[in-house]
Amino acid sequence: MAIIRKKTGNFLEDFRPGGVLRHKRGKTITEGLFAVFSDFSMTTNPLSKNLRYAQAYGFRGLVVHPGLVMNVVFSQSVEDVSENARANLEYVDMRFGVPVCVGDTLESQTRVLGVRASASNPSLGVVHVQTTGRNQHGEVVLTFQRKVQVWKHDLDAPISDEQVPPEEIPVSLALPEYDPKRGYRDLAHLSSPDTYFEDFRPGDVLEHSRGRVVTTDHIMLTGMLDNTSQVHCNQWMVEQDPDRYVGGQLIVFGGIPFNLCLGISSADCSDNALADIRYATGRHTAPIFAGDTVFAATEIREVRDFPGRPDIGVVGVVLRGHKFVRKCEETGKAGAGKEEKSEAAEKVEIFYLERELAVKRRSHYT
Amino acid sequence: MAIIRKKTGNFLEDFRPGGVLRHKRGKTITEGLFAVFSDFSMTTNPLSKNLRYAQAYGFRGLVVHPGLVMNVVFSQSVEDVSENARANLEYVDMRFGVPVCVGDTLESQTRVLGVRASASNPSLGVVHVQTTGRNQHGEVVLTFQRKVQVWKHDLDAPISDEQVPPEEIPVSLALPEYDPKRGYRDLAHLSSPDTYFEDFRPGDVLEHSRGRVVTTDHIMLTGMLDNTSQVHCNQWMVEQDPDRYVGGQLIVFGGIPFNLCLGISSADCSDNALADIRYATGRHTAPIFAGDTVFAATEIREVRDFPGRPDIGVVGVVLRGHKFVRKCEETGKAGAGKEEKSEAAEKVEIFYLERELAVKRRSHYT
Amino acid sequence: MAIIRKKTGNFLEDFRPGGVLRHKRGKTITEGLFAVFSDFSMTTNPLSKNLRYAQAYGFRGLVVHPGLVMNVVFSQSVEDVSENARANLEYVDMRFGVPVCVGDTLESQTRVLGVRASASNPSLGVVHVQTTGRNQHGEVVLTFQRKVQVWKHDLDAPISDEQVPPEEIPVSLALPEYDPKRGYRDLAHLSSPDTYFEDFRPGDVLEHSRGRVVTTDHIMLTGMLDNTSQVHCNQWMVEQDPDRYVGGQLIVFGGIPFNLCLGISSADCSDNALADIRYATGRHTAPIFAGDTVFAATEIREVRDFPGRPDIGVVGVVLRGHKFVRKCEETGKAGAGKEEKSEAAEKVEIFYLERELAVKRRSHYT
Repeated sequence: MAIIRKKTGNFLEDFRPGGVLRHKRGKTITEGLFAVFSDFSMTTNPLSKNLRYAQAYGFRGLVVHPGLVMNVVFSQSVEDVSENARANLEYVDMRFGVPVCVGDTLESQTRVLGVRASASNPSLGVVHVQTTGRNQHGEVVLTFQRKVQVWKHDLDAPISDEQVPPEEIPVSLALPEYDPKRGYRDLAHLSSPDTYFEDFRPGDVLEHSRGRVVTTDHIMLTGMLDNTSQVHCNQWMVEQDPDRYVGGQLIVFGGIPFNLCLGISSADCSDNALADIRYATGRHTAPIFAGDTVFAATEIREVRDFPGRPDIGVVGVVLRGHKFVRKCEETGKAGAGKEEKSEAAEKVEIFYLERELAVKRRSHYT
Repeated sequence: MAIIRKKTGNFLEDFRPGGVLRHKRGKTITEGLFAVFSDFSMTTNPLSKNLRYAQAYGFRGLVVHPGLVMNVVFSQSVEDVSENARANLEYVDMRFGVPVCVGDTLESQTRVLGVRASASNPSLGVVHVQTTGRNQHGEVVLTFQRKVQVWKHDLDAPISDEQVPPEEIPVSLALPEYDPKRGYRDLAHLSSPDTYFEDFRPGDVLEHSRGRVVTTDHIMLTGMLDNTSQVHCNQWMVEQDPDRYVGGQLIVFGGIPFNLCLGISSADCSDNALADIRYATGRHTAPIFAGDTVFAATEIREVRDFPGRPDIGVVGVVLRGHKFVRKCEETGKAGAGKEEKSEAAEKVEIFYLERELAVKRRSHYT
Repeated sequence: MAIIRKKTGNFLEDFRPGGVLRHKRGKTITEGLFAVFSDFSMTTNPLSKNLRYAQAYGFRGLVVHPGLVMNVVFSQSVEDVSENARANLEYVDMRFGVPVCVGDTLESQTRVLGVRASASNPSLGVVHVQTTGRNQHGEVVLTFQRKVQVWKHDLDAPISDEQVPPEEIPVSLALPEYDPKRGYRDLAHLSSPDTYFEDFRPGDVLEHSRGRVVTTDHIMLTGMLDNTSQVHCNQWMVEQDPDRYVGGQLIVFGGIPFNLCLGISSADCSDNALADIRYATGRHTAPIFAGDTVFAATEIREVRDFPGRPDIGVVGVVLRGHKFVRKCEETGKAGAGKEEKSEAAEKVEIFYLERELAVKRRSHYT
């Protein structure tokens, strides 16, 4: 007889550059996951709302929006890559492939590109990986690299301190053909009238008006993604070690504000996008917690043609998320030992994403 | 380059009587939205629970109950009509058309009937509209008028202070035919035995025994409806302006208690209804907040034949929702400056709805 | 005119041994219920995650995991059996029949086996019942007995203090045939590599590493099951009578930790199970409340052949759930009337289940 304390996930010393981790389970995107996760973000693109519209555009069904595709594939990699992580440092070169529709099944795998021990902290290091998700036909739906800070389990274990190049992953965006017989004009009232390709001017910054508080619902949402990281749901664990776990609070999974920022921005900049093409880089610049309200702004960086598709254009933007935090400031002694305080609000950037969208041209769709 | 603060929704001065607002997006009622929203209300009608039962009755699939039909169509009108509203004043002449089943896609539009500036407050006024929702075949599923108190943005802007008549919207309830071969008797144990047409006596008041607390889950539920009103989900915004936003609290979207009251009453009065026919008038008589427990009672007002359908009858009721609030009362000085307080509970009506139901007759179904 | 205070559920004196209660409504397992309830538990078996995998194994669709089957059937019995219960005492001889897949409709009925008045408390007694759930084809999916402590309504009413034997319910597990042509080996990376039949040694105790906090989301989850018991959702009611209702707190429905413990254990012991066969006995050994974090451990008791199926074996285990509670201890006077306190954590068992699983053999599936 033995008491076996089951461990899950890899630690820094377990990663081997060049090795491939085939992630477990896979996930079918049911109408349940789709509805809960899409709608929570306040996303507005009719392709992800209205089956009649999505089918008229030539999609097989309701389109799973990029925030959910990213969250499902990313979460499948968590057990093997980041269940024992301290922080997700950066998303790199995230590219979308064939569209995902409700009912599709996604499975993922990750190639380890590099491991680097921390110079200052012997219990930490950085793992660099490349994760790719495919649908039930084996077609790539998403591929990306990420860098993540992972705990070491055995401080004396050796680290494979090397780097292998990323694998070449062919990605095809595979959008439905443009076909004027589809009756786009009859559907045009279902999306924003001012978010066509012609509307975007480099340099403009769109401050999105809506915000959304994150409640403890983040725990349920993260669970629905099969994300097994304990720092998002194991309240007792984080309370036992506040020094290690941001003061003993559950931290909100980064995929939640990632998804929320995409959703909050959608009425102003992706309501007429056929797809997200690529995120060159992205990072969570500050953590969020239950009770924080998430806001977003989009800076237009670039507009250019989409090769071979005169009906759409590429819009390059920077999407930033932010929250406000109260800052107590001493404003001087009020006498008798009582300090006068005034509360000020500080705007804190929580998310940064360089994003390229495939956006319909008004000339072809209205 | 420009910083563009995006605005959403219309203000009082933007409404033009006679104008038509075609609402964006549309919404397919997925099994996800259906399950989360129906079940949360504690609705008990087997048509919305049991596919075998719904199909035996001649419906194409699980029937979307009236509370969800109303909430989806209503929420589609929020961005254009009430995103900048202070309060929803009244529902008028809400009539249900063809049944909605899971998988249907609803799209809506609103005709502006009237705009009236407030006599006492230059920053407010009332907008009167008529909203109609249709399914993917263009059939009317719901039409109603409502009056809503909307903020003015530019206090100096002129108001179109006029009124146009409501459009005549043909509405057909379109219930499946009665057919004794369907085997209704073999299904009769699946609904309450004491809620047939013959059981209702005008004058009776049914106090429904169940109650349900609303938690912060109202934020998720409102988001699932694509309701974009910020007063339900933007915690930071309401905290910054407690004078404008009921003390800095998120107010629960009226559709939530509307839906809950329908659900709480269903075991006692609509478990054997084939449909809700019409709500002549309805209003939210007090706001609710996270933490409130919602209760309901139904007053039977009228019973009458349903023309052309001897198997069913019309039951006219008033559905009222209520909550209890603690009231601190001073009961006298207890000496030494200490006040004695006793806590009493006050019953507060939160919802009023005049409702007509199409209810099965025991003679035909058991 | 009459004010009618509607009552729901039976009291102790209403149960008649030998009587059969056909439960109302029935429930179709939509993709919405499936996704929300399955994923919340952190269950990891790919049969309940990945449609491609489930179909390759010969199931008609995504497999509804045993925790959800149990919760749906159990909850259908609540209104008639335990809406007026004080506590659920024991599950007995719970056996699973044909697999349940997404889209199936379950309906249930309960036979009353016995009623026994409490010797010490005239307002309480124990009801012993046998509940059976069937799918839309009339096939048994689950049958079990339970004992539940129920309130008496009329203290003077007589009790049918007798006992009838349980009905013989034929249950067939009905697993898909083993067929090497299905390509199991190509799917083997999707489940844990160390949870095949050959991996289990009687006497081992597996301490599962993951935990999950229960938030107020338990109210929504319980509602989604159509569980109508008021002690889980009627905040006002429990606050009015703290003596009767555990200090005025909503108690979490036992099906929630039941389901969570199954899910938390799955990566370590049921990831390669084709089905749960039988729970000989089970009970909730302590209540849980919003804010508690649930953990679990599995003790391997027995491994044996599965008659007629050389590809699988039976693993008998005990699944235990636990939580930690803070315990304030006085550690001595620190002088001047100030007591020094230290906080210690006490591990409290919340759930006990004797469980038999049908587990794949590595020899046949990898």
